[in-house]
Amino acid sequence: MTTMLENLRVVLTHTTLAANIGGVARAMMTMGLSQLVLVKPKQPIDETSYAHAKGGGVILDKASVVETLDEALADCHLVIATSARNRSTPRPMLDQREAAELITNFTHEHKNTNIALVFGREDRGLTNHELSLAHYHLAIRANPAYPVLNLASSVQVVASYLYEAQTPIRTKPAQKNPINHTQKQVLDDMLLSLFDTVQLNDEQKSGHLLERIRRLTAFQMMDSTDYKLTMALLYQLQKRLATPTQTMDML
Amino acid sequence: MTTMLENLRVVLTHTTLAANIGGVARAMMTMGLSQLVLVKPKQPIDETSYAHAKGGGVILDKASVVETLDEALADCHLVIATSARNRSTPRPMLDQREAAELITNFTHEHKNTNIALVFGREDRGLTNHELSLAHYHLAIRANPAYPVLNLASSVQVVASYLYEAQTPIRTKPAQKNPINHTQKQVLDDMLLSLFDTVQLNDEQKSGHLLERIRRLTAFQMMDSTDYKLTMALLYQLQKRLATPTQTMDML
Repeated sequence: MTTMLENLRVVLTHTTLAANIGGVARAMMTMGLSQLVLVKPKQPIDETSYAHAKGGGVILDKASVVETLDEALADCHLVIATSARNRSTPRPMLDQREAAELITNFTHEHKNTNIALVFGREDRGLTNHELSLAHYHLAIRANPAYPVLNLASSVQVVASYLYEAQTPIRTKPAQKNPINHTQKQVLDDMLLSLFDTVQLNDEQKSGHLLERIRRLTAFQMMDSTDYKLTMALLYQLQKRLATPTQTMDML
Repeated sequence: MTTMLENLRVVLTHTTLAANIGGVARAMMTMGLSQLVLVKPKQPIDETSYAHAKGGGVILDKASVVETLDEALADCHLVIATSARNRSTPRPMLDQREAAELITNFTHEHKNTNIALVFGREDRGLTNHELSLAHYHLAIRANPAYPVLNLASSVQVVASYLYEAQTPIRTKPAQKNPINHTQKQVLDDMLLSLFDTVQLNDEQKSGHLLERIRRLTAFQMMDSTDYKLTMALLYQLQKRLATPTQTMDML
């Protein structure tokens, strides 16, 4: 996958812990984001950051560190700042899905523009001044009794929604060699005849047995190997049940 | 908010680090989940877990610890196991959104049923045997080049989608005392007349100035205080500009 959001930067302001910078890098990497900008972190990127970044170490390698949020945002055309609901500097509030849709539309409509997602301090988030530099505010939808996500988790959630919005085509892993309609019907008929053989096909009691069998096998998602195994079993059962002496041997 | 998914349990199998159990508890708390079951963790819940759980400590207090995944799932009616794409024990594959929808529908259709979301070891995930105990497999949509989410982050993403699916009604924070259409028109007209006053309303150059003004003020989301301030300013500007001597004083 090429990074679809190469013009999107994650901006962290005044992070306290180097470990969290690493956690953010890992979260970004898993969702195909690559640009990390740190505004005056209290601890610089260090080995703890890399330990937490795991496969996201490459993002730390090229992360930039600046002195002010203004510097981080200077060439950005769309700025979205994460925030608890804020009254003093109102901006349009987005949740994570709306933010993902907005960013996706913005990148489609405006080529060669830069977008910033701004995340605040671990303990206190963004200041009112920092929030006032954004076009939109983003609050992750969360339990109002405790909406306090870990910094890396916040990035993970927003980035996950973004990733989903950027990759709308869902490729379902195809069942390898799935059985076809006819094969399923042969199976269903064999099961039905087995019920008959053991005299369990009592329409009064079991309702529409064949329909019930069709429904049951519909959920099996058999591949051709499952199918061969099952058919071999049913064939053997049918064969032995049809021969009274062998049936006795089986008991 | 009452917890809507009180019958949903998060099951962690064989976690290595006590810190991660805490991280998971915090992620759960932020999204209104409450039931945590640990299958044979390598480290028990300890003070490190609580340090990472923050406000989710209450979930650790009542977490249960069992010996086998079978015990954890015994009374569950729907089991969804997280997995990278798996070939050997195929189950219907869900992404996080599909899982959230499935669970939401399931809880609506079947009252008093238990649901389990199973997450594997930090390093190797779930074994094929563990995966075979599930009805569905869930793979979080992620960068194929590095889809390795941290354990707590995985729980956070799935829980976030679940929370969203369970709380579909979006309550937009209303702008307090937003200005109405007429107020906006008065503002627009005053701006236009100010352009006229300073002889900047050149139709040739600026195109449809009034339309441009209407669009600009449409993005301002003014409340009544913003409005009063702005109107007062415009009024003063207009008044002073209309009096040549005062205008000179301003310069």
